[in-house]
Amino acid sequence: MDYVYGPGRNHLFVPGPVNIPDQVLRAMNRNNEDYRSPAVPALTKTLLEDVKKIFKTTSGTPFLIPTTGTGAWESALTNTLSPGDRTVSFLIGQFSLLWIDQQQRLNFNVDVVESEWGQGANLDVLASKIAEDTAHTIKAICIVHNETATGVTNNLATVRKILDHYQHPALFLVDGVSSICALDFRMDEWGIDVALTGSQKALSLPTGLGIVCASPKALEATKTAKSVRVFFDWNDYLKFYKLGTYWPYTPSIQLLYGLRAALDLIFEEGLDNIIARHTRLGKATRLAVAAWGLKNCTQKEEWYSDTVTAVVIPSNIDSTEIVRQAWKRYNLSLGLGLNKVAGKVFRIGHLGNLNELQLLGCLAGVEMVLKDVGYPVKLGSGVAAASAYLQNSTPLIPSRI
Amino acid sequence: MDYVYGPGRNHLFVPGPVNIPDQVLRAMNRNNEDYRSPAVPALTKTLLEDVKKIFKTTSGTPFLIPTTGTGAWESALTNTLSPGDRTVSFLIGQFSLLWIDQQQRLNFNVDVVESEWGQGANLDVLASKIAEDTAHTIKAICIVHNETATGVTNNLATVRKILDHYQHPALFLVDGVSSICALDFRMDEWGIDVALTGSQKALSLPTGLGIVCASPKALEATKTAKSVRVFFDWNDYLKFYKLGTYWPYTPSIQLLYGLRAALDLIFEEGLDNIIARHTRLGKATRLAVAAWGLKNCTQKEEWYSDTVTAVVIPSNIDSTEIVRQAWKRYNLSLGLGLNKVAGKVFRIGHLGNLNELQLLGCLAGVEMVLKDVGYPVKLGSGVAAASAYLQNSTPLIPSRI
Amino acid sequence: MDYVYGPGRNHLFVPGPVNIPDQVLRAMNRNNEDYRSPAVPALTKTLLEDVKKIFKTTSGTPFLIPTTGTGAWESALTNTLSPGDRTVSFLIGQFSLLWIDQQQRLNFNVDVVESEWGQGANLDVLASKIAEDTAHTIKAICIVHNETATGVTNNLATVRKILDHYQHPALFLVDGVSSICALDFRMDEWGIDVALTGSQKALSLPTGLGIVCASPKALEATKTAKSVRVFFDWNDYLKFYKLGTYWPYTPSIQLLYGLRAALDLIFEEGLDNIIARHTRLGKATRLAVAAWGLKNCTQKEEWYSDTVTAVVIPSNIDSTEIVRQAWKRYNLSLGLGLNKVAGKVFRIGHLGNLNELQLLGCLAGVEMVLKDVGYPVKLGSGVAAASAYLQNSTPLIPSRI
Amino acid sequence: MDYVYGPGRNHLFVPGPVNIPDQVLRAMNRNNEDYRSPAVPALTKTLLEDVKKIFKTTSGTPFLIPTTGTGAWESALTNTLSPGDRTVSFLIGQFSLLWIDQQQRLNFNVDVVESEWGQGANLDVLASKIAEDTAHTIKAICIVHNETATGVTNNLATVRKILDHYQHPALFLVDGVSSICALDFRMDEWGIDVALTGSQKALSLPTGLGIVCASPKALEATKTAKSVRVFFDWNDYLKFYKLGTYWPYTPSIQLLYGLRAALDLIFEEGLDNIIARHTRLGKATRLAVAAWGLKNCTQKEEWYSDTVTAVVIPSNIDSTEIVRQAWKRYNLSLGLGLNKVAGKVFRIGHLGNLNELQLLGCLAGVEMVLKDVGYPVKLGSGVAAASAYLQNSTPLIPSRI
Repeated sequence: MDYVYGPGRNHLFVPGPVNIPDQVLRAMNRNNEDYRSPAVPALTKTLLEDVKKIFKTTSGTPFLIPTTGTGAWESALTNTLSPGDRTVSFLIGQFSLLWIDQQQRLNFNVDVVESEWGQGANLDVLASKIAEDTAHTIKAICIVHNETATGVTNNLATVRKILDHYQHPALFLVDGVSSICALDFRMDEWGIDVALTGSQKALSLPTGLGIVCASPKALEATKTAKSVRVFFDWNDYLKFYKLGTYWPYTPSIQLLYGLRAALDLIFEEGLDNIIARHTRLGKATRLAVAAWGLKNCTQKEEWYSDTVTAVVIPSNIDSTEIVRQAWKRYNLSLGLGLNKVAGKVFRIGHLGNLNELQLLGCLAGVEMVLKDVGYPVKLGSGVAAASAYLQNSTPLIPSRI
Repeated sequence: MDYVYGPGRNHLFVPGPVNIPDQVLRAMNRNNEDYRSPAVPALTKTLLEDVKKIFKTTSGTPFLIPTTGTGAWESALTNTLSPGDRTVSFLIGQFSLLWIDQQQRLNFNVDVVESEWGQGANLDVLASKIAEDTAHTIKAICIVHNETATGVTNNLATVRKILDHYQHPALFLVDGVSSICALDFRMDEWGIDVALTGSQKALSLPTGLGIVCASPKALEATKTAKSVRVFFDWNDYLKFYKLGTYWPYTPSIQLLYGLRAALDLIFEEGLDNIIARHTRLGKATRLAVAAWGLKNCTQKEEWYSDTVTAVVIPSNIDSTEIVRQAWKRYNLSLGLGLNKVAGKVFRIGHLGNLNELQLLGCLAGVEMVLKDVGYPVKLGSGVAAASAYLQNSTPLIPSRI
Repeated sequence: MDYVYGPGRNHLFVPGPVNIPDQVLRAMNRNNEDYRSPAVPALTKTLLEDVKKIFKTTSGTPFLIPTTGTGAWESALTNTLSPGDRTVSFLIGQFSLLWIDQQQRLNFNVDVVESEWGQGANLDVLASKIAEDTAHTIKAICIVHNETATGVTNNLATVRKILDHYQHPALFLVDGVSSICALDFRMDEWGIDVALTGSQKALSLPTGLGIVCASPKALEATKTAKSVRVFFDWNDYLKFYKLGTYWPYTPSIQLLYGLRAALDLIFEEGLDNIIARHTRLGKATRLAVAAWGLKNCTQKEEWYSDTVTAVVIPSNIDSTEIVRQAWKRYNLSLGLGLNKVAGKVFRIGHLGNLNELQLLGCLAGVEMVLKDVGYPVKLGSGVAAASAYLQNSTPLIPSRI
Repeated sequence: MDYVYGPGRNHLFVPGPVNIPDQVLRAMNRNNEDYRSPAVPALTKTLLEDVKKIFKTTSGTPFLIPTTGTGAWESALTNTLSPGDRTVSFLIGQFSLLWIDQQQRLNFNVDVVESEWGQGANLDVLASKIAEDTAHTIKAICIVHNETATGVTNNLATVRKILDHYQHPALFLVDGVSSICALDFRMDEWGIDVALTGSQKALSLPTGLGIVCASPKALEATKTAKSVRVFFDWNDYLKFYKLGTYWPYTPSIQLLYGLRAALDLIFEEGLDNIIARHTRLGKATRLAVAAWGLKNCTQKEEWYSDTVTAVVIPSNIDSTEIVRQAWKRYNLSLGLGLNKVAGKVFRIGHLGNLNELQLLGCLAGVEMVLKDVGYPVKLGSGVAAASAYLQNSTPLIPSRI
């Protein structure tokens, strides 16, 4: 019946899908409903209004697409670009690689800016390309805000500055899959044209909703974008938005109510408090990694991710074995190293509905696994470093003051 | 908190999404899991094996795509066809219309065979076209097995006979959204190349899985199919099938466990028993409609659908008002008339995990609503006609014998 | 895994336990909590305040006891009476019989007033006894408001009038198990000293809470009541009420949150609307029974119960077979005849979170079963009679106007 | 709506109620059912058979009583003893105190053997009393196996040895509330006459079932036991056991299915593996306490409890503040000191469905709270001590080998 009996709770520290709050599980525990009744549009209307807040946009138009992050990418690209269009994309890890692969298969002319895995997007190269592109052949900048494979956060504000500096009209498309609702993200302020995330990341829902937000400029671009699209066509949504029925095809009733509950929790905690919590848990994790004598895959502090930490393991140890043992012995789910860093890093996801003691339990588990696989860690050292910081910085839970 | 408080239970009789069995709700009531752990592939493997049984195929390859029926359509088309390819499609109602619209937007050369709404696909015209097409310009026959808007079931065996008679190599693509797992469906026997359904229909799950099954010939066609596709590309799945990890992107853990529970229930009841139950409920509904003195939108018995009945209402009454009152007064969700039959028909969905008394409660409700809106129905007449048949034909519940 | 697989939904029409609203199921779908944290007392305080409203009392003191109705009875008796005390009790069916049995085993001197099963409590005899009892040897009147075995509702206002007329100080103890929150019940106005119900009845929760409310006079009686009690001792609760921690032993966290959700739904619908709904469903059921040509076990209209109808079946049919077939063939759960009326009646419970179409589905099912067992019912007749009345009397659902 | 929003998961480390496994939550997420249908007795039969295994009895008769531990106590006493009967009871903490209070209020002649809180039951005194009692005036030995207030486990085998040595016929009544299904417990081997637990303890269910098991000798004693009892009367159950319907009053359907799931998990893990897990977690906790430089309330190793550890805090700190801060800042629920040890100890419950990393997260939290309240703990020290032991002793999860 259950394929993964514990005992006790699974410690889910992959960088997505993440832990679902019980309140959200409860909200989703329900039968189907007729999505054409007045109730579902009324609910949808509140969702579309409120979801904009987590993008920090007032001018954007959100789409709740029954798909994954990969589908959300496709939606962003095909609605705004035409085959042959030149995009500038940054290859810095597995997820940016996959997005570039998608862009190529969708027949865009992808100008790939590659960095070593563990580094951020090379924005100097971007600046050069933009400077040179007086003919405006570059139609879009495609950038992953937070590369989940290496734990690298790119500086979006700088991208905007570069574009503005050269008054370049390229669309600014952002994969915020592992950042939105966890890291500082400002769609309007940073002039982002399409931003997207997936429900199973910081929103802490099941997989199933690709949440995409389009600026007025992006919506305008749909009129000339010739990429073939049907399922992902925003215009089908917009048609139903006007009718007030909202859905071109059947939505998941459960995910809609789940999203309502998730947004309620987010606003109850406060988006800025949530971001601060991720900052806190990210820093605590990095302090533990340092205490263990291990290296962060992320090469510079400016790129440190507060949602996922990729830990580099000495070459005599296979990081896959760490992930395997963590699951088999301690019911701890860690992230594998992917592609170029397979076997070399393991990842600790620290995003979504998570608190300090859950993280410390995870860190204690990592320590034991490290010892199990032969790395000479001092047990308790990472927990000590992390908790020294957390004990000083953790605020009272607002509802309990 | 809840937008649609009763009291009592909502009577969900739209032709999808349908009622979810409690066993399935329970199975889905769970936290996220790492889909890269050994557990999820082990689960997935059983799902892929077992889901073939509801298509009655042994040679087909199934795909569980995080999408809706519309996405499943797109997956079927783009993986097997190239822009400009000629398809023969049958326009007999709203859902066949939408599929044709998709085919056109995907740049196929769609040869539309139109019938009056309420009639089945005109297979005589198909036979002529196939007979004439000695050059094999027709690349695919696209047919909706059960047109949900009008309650019309098409004869798939005849399609196969026509193709075989002329030894025509066209692909045979079938929308089984409101038929598979409810009506007689035989992928292998009828030589269907792509068949598809959605999780929220007869499988009785939430929306979120497009379930597509491809014949070896369809898989072969992917090699030459030039339609642009990334998210819907079967080859991305096949690559991970070979690796034994199965998922090119994050699946919904909840839907996987839900599908497992749904399949377990299906096999416990028996697929043939399920089909017989739908036959029984379909016939009972039609007997009630006749007793009310109303007409079935479906024009001939050979096309009667056992999953949905579209009821034609006298022209002095707006069927939209019937649907509205049913929901507002009796907590009964009926299907609207769509497009050409908007205002003219209302629909009773009788598919999925449903039993006799639920249907009779619905029919009793319809009677009251008909009276509410001024139609001179004899209260109890439809229930009497339906129950006279059901009392004779309903078997004991197997687990309770 | 599941012992009672359908397909479709079970139609639960026993007079308790009753259908649980989905909102309540969701509220209870949660982990345990520390009941000594500030959260649980805060929740409990709202429950104790709000639960008084369903008793229509402001002066009463409620107790939420982790027990069943039988335990609630014991709590009512042992907290207010001493061994040897004379009680007047009415034997009119199985549940009054069981309460009398309990009173005897608790060593009270029970003065049993017996009526034929199907009749109400003989209040003329009560009046005589009270008139004669100038010495006030009668310490308590124990009466079941609604005898669930026969579908008889007693007139509590008359009991109060009799006591007042003779200025008799006897305690007035009422079993409201199948009446409170469904039938008109006025603890303060009728001068009831102890009233009680169980969570699985009209409150529509799982079994597990005996809800008892004591008047100031009843609380005063605890001071002299010598019956041995520990688990059921109200004073243990009162001690913790004063401390603001509320619980002398561990409560069910799930039932507390469930009760909160149940009360929220009750206030959303409105207690008077709920009572009107029960009146409506009760009347509709009786109209169906009459249309079937069957007799109500309840002998006079003044005693008709709006929460349960006991239907008398001709002597050539065993009512147990009706209940058995209903469950085996139609997934319909009806109430058995108990004790004296075993085999002679079957019961339709129509209380709790239930609506018109659910009831009509049940009535349609009863008709088919009646035919199955050989009773010459005209199929549809009961549904016709019930729906003729319901179609006229059912109001719009308030939240959907 | 939710009174205790996180973020993240509550860390529940009170010694009951404990964490409910998700599998059990799922099993309980269901509507009510007719408990008189064939399904509920069939389920009940499996429960009664299987629950005996966690008592390690084959000759005992179990009762699943809708009550709490307090009610289970009352059931054990009133079914086997008569007012005035002499019991020997051991006062070693709050729960033994409350049981003694109950015995006194039930009018037994309680011979109290008191020890300092933190010590075990004084079995030397028992031996003397038994030796002296040649007249067999002692009718029952009442002993709490594991005193939850102080973390003291008593030696039941020695009690049996004493009774056997003197061939004394006293009944041997055991409160196993915080021991059964977590500590070594052998009803038959140790000749225990009544053993009892509550569902919310090591069985890891919600509160609501008092689970009591009676030896043949205890059942025999019911024939002469004159204590007044109705709700708790075992004979009412036995009557229905014989009928095969099992229930004298309405059970909680949800708890029955929950118990089924709980037992399935227990047998899947293996009772002996569960006991070993508790031993492991208990020892790890004590190692952490020692590393913090704090004292265990339990005075000798022979009494150390593997389900709860009471930690003595220096007198300048109020342990209540520790519990309060843990909840307010870290979402960690610890046990308060009760009665004599209020303010002096706090308690860590480590029983039920729990694993190593959950415990280490808790210990990390305790360390931070200790620092918050001014105790000079070395952060990480307790986790280091505990994980050094756990890393060596934790086996692979059987289902994942």
